[in-house]
Amino acid sequence: MSEVRVGIIGLGNMGTSHANQIFSGNIPGAVLGAVCDARQDRLDWAKETFQDQVEVYDSVEEFFNSGNIDGVIIATPHYDHPPLAIKAFEKGLHVLCEKPAGVYTKNVREMNEAAEKSGKVFSMMFNQRTNPLYQKVRDLIVSGELGEIKRTNWIITNWYRSQSYYDSGSWRATWAGEGGGVMLNQSPHQLDLWQWTTGLMPKRVRAFCSFGKYRNIEVEDDVTTYAEYENGATGVFITSVGEAPGTNRFEIAGDRGKLVVEDNKLTFWRLRVSEKQFNEEYKGGFGEPECWKIDIPIHGHGTEHVGIMRNWISAILHGTELLAPGEEGIKSLMISNAVYLSSWIDNWVEMPIDEDLFYEMLQEKIKNSTYEKVDTGDKTLDVSGTH
Amino acid sequence: MSEVRVGIIGLGNMGTSHANQIFSGNIPGAVLGAVCDARQDRLDWAKETFQDQVEVYDSVEEFFNSGNIDGVIIATPHYDHPPLAIKAFEKGLHVLCEKPAGVYTKNVREMNEAAEKSGKVFSMMFNQRTNPLYQKVRDLIVSGELGEIKRTNWIITNWYRSQSYYDSGSWRATWAGEGGGVMLNQSPHQLDLWQWTTGLMPKRVRAFCSFGKYRNIEVEDDVTTYAEYENGATGVFITSVGEAPGTNRFEIAGDRGKLVVEDNKLTFWRLRVSEKQFNEEYKGGFGEPECWKIDIPIHGHGTEHVGIMRNWISAILHGTELLAPGEEGIKSLMISNAVYLSSWIDNWVEMPIDEDLFYEMLQEKIKNSTYEKVDTGDKTLDVSGTH
Repeated sequence: MSEVRVGIIGLGNMGTSHANQIFSGNIPGAVLGAVCDARQDRLDWAKETFQDQVEVYDSVEEFFNSGNIDGVIIATPHYDHPPLAIKAFEKGLHVLCEKPAGVYTKNVREMNEAAEKSGKVFSMMFNQRTNPLYQKVRDLIVSGELGEIKRTNWIITNWYRSQSYYDSGSWRATWAGEGGGVMLNQSPHQLDLWQWTTGLMPKRVRAFCSFGKYRNIEVEDDVTTYAEYENGATGVFITSVGEAPGTNRFEIAGDRGKLVVEDNKLTFWRLRVSEKQFNEEYKGGFGEPECWKIDIPIHGHGTEHVGIMRNWISAILHGTELLAPGEEGIKSLMISNAVYLSSWIDNWVEMPIDEDLFYEMLQEKIKNSTYEKVDTGDKTLDVSGTH
Repeated sequence: MSEVRVGIIGLGNMGTSHANQIFSGNIPGAVLGAVCDARQDRLDWAKETFQDQVEVYDSVEEFFNSGNIDGVIIATPHYDHPPLAIKAFEKGLHVLCEKPAGVYTKNVREMNEAAEKSGKVFSMMFNQRTNPLYQKVRDLIVSGELGEIKRTNWIITNWYRSQSYYDSGSWRATWAGEGGGVMLNQSPHQLDLWQWTTGLMPKRVRAFCSFGKYRNIEVEDDVTTYAEYENGATGVFITSVGEAPGTNRFEIAGDRGKLVVEDNKLTFWRLRVSEKQFNEEYKGGFGEPECWKIDIPIHGHGTEHVGIMRNWISAILHGTELLAPGEEGIKSLMISNAVYLSSWIDNWVEMPIDEDLFYEMLQEKIKNSTYEKVDTGDKTLDVSGTH
């Protein structure tokens, strides 16, 4: 294969952007083979934009059976990610899936099984893994520079969303439509980076969600999560859509110092000897280890969605390594599901979560929903600078 | 009265420092009338230092009955604060009490009642209330500049303590001796500032303490606390003695912006219109309120313990207002007690706490303690730069 014919399913905010990137030739080795959406205005847009160079489908079946595509980018509402990916794998197609992997881990696990069975190249759109800042955080942890992790803390509240944002799509911020709020929509990248940079998944979680506190929505708009890890470390993840100007600050304390990512800078407070060693040797009163504050140099910029698409295409064409293997999408979703579950049952949630219980409780939320959406008509928003 | 004869009970780290300040004439209107301690080496030190200018007692009864003092500074181990204060009030003495107010709110409440009955001047050694940085935080909140509070977050982990610190006193870090760890010893000032600057006490608390995780002690050395306030705001308070170099960062998000205290600086991100108003008026997609980053000027330095002593003496002599009324000591202790209780019962704790339950559970901890202290001899540590 010398070039990959990519199909895009879902021409909402993200799918439209991806389609434009591929169509404009920005992804070497990829051509836009087909697009698919059910909405007439998106189909009209596609026909007008791509003229007769790209097949345009309003039927999922015809899209998958067209024979015009080798791989598919799934950019539909969250619930459809796993069933569409499973269908794609069954058709022998490679898959690049938008985040989150799905709404509940139960069918994301099935998606992962289908991927493995197919042997096709499966990637997740964790574009923030291309950010050299977070790559460096991971590097400093994986290489042992930071030492064993003691505490993680991420305050990520700088994705303000007004009521008008929620009113811009009828599916938004409903249990039936999106299956969640700030955890499932805004946070998946940070939840992924939280586990990817540290290499740690929580052992158990105790979370506190506020549902519709700042906005007239039925899902959560404000969350504090407390996590415990196997090695005894603790973590906190705080997010909200109701704060302005918001904060994005990720702190990781380790045995050899402390990392802080804030304002697009990475600072490493590095101890000359590990805290553990200092503690064993020190015999005085109030002393502490000598510490050096280091501005870690960061080179280049994140290649973002384009980078993930190129990485996926390269893996298909040349067998190169994936930066964001699709099977890893379940990790951040597992955390997200655990957060909801903990809040719903008002108690601890052990990991891995009880997937059946989560699924049942989610269905209950959908069934018992009394929320009436103010329908102002679905809009495709300009997503420059978000996600 | 033209000058206050101050007695100091407890010549440990803090009491020694206070005695020196008064003896050296650094507190206008105060003279050191008497000191009291049970330990021979401290009595020897006092006699040698103060010669025959200050009465030195090894008996609490004689100290209180001496007639040589008008007011007393209590700087004994925590457990003794309320009973000694109550005794002082009964003797008609003014009281300045070291933090924390006590170990459990049950007898701190009795102390407050005794203070009220006596009509004497009662202050708490919340020396960090003299810090112009925190006074300005309080000012910006009380004056309405920040708007209604949405979230508070304090990471205060920059009080590293080695094992040798804990081994320096046999009473340290035991349920029987100190009655707590990092919450009760290191955190009282910050717990006080948390409520004093914001004017908010938690409505309920869910906390997660680790006991003896980093050090060979039986009390807590690492804590994450989640709090909910009456107005719907949430808060997090994180502290640890096992991290180096540690963090001291206090963030408060409000309807009109965000305050951050870090590195002895106060930054105010100020919204031109309140977030609430923006949200009501905005009709677009991803917009947010215009925000100005402001470096708030801070003038002067905290007068610290000396400032609180001067303030207390001035209140006695001239009836001026107390910066840290003694009755307010119960607030930070109430939070601290709630944190333990929540961790012990592994559940929510509503405020005000069940004081009897807390007292009973604390007694159980003391009774069931199997912890054997490595006794390396009590030492009076140089406390410059701490507390």
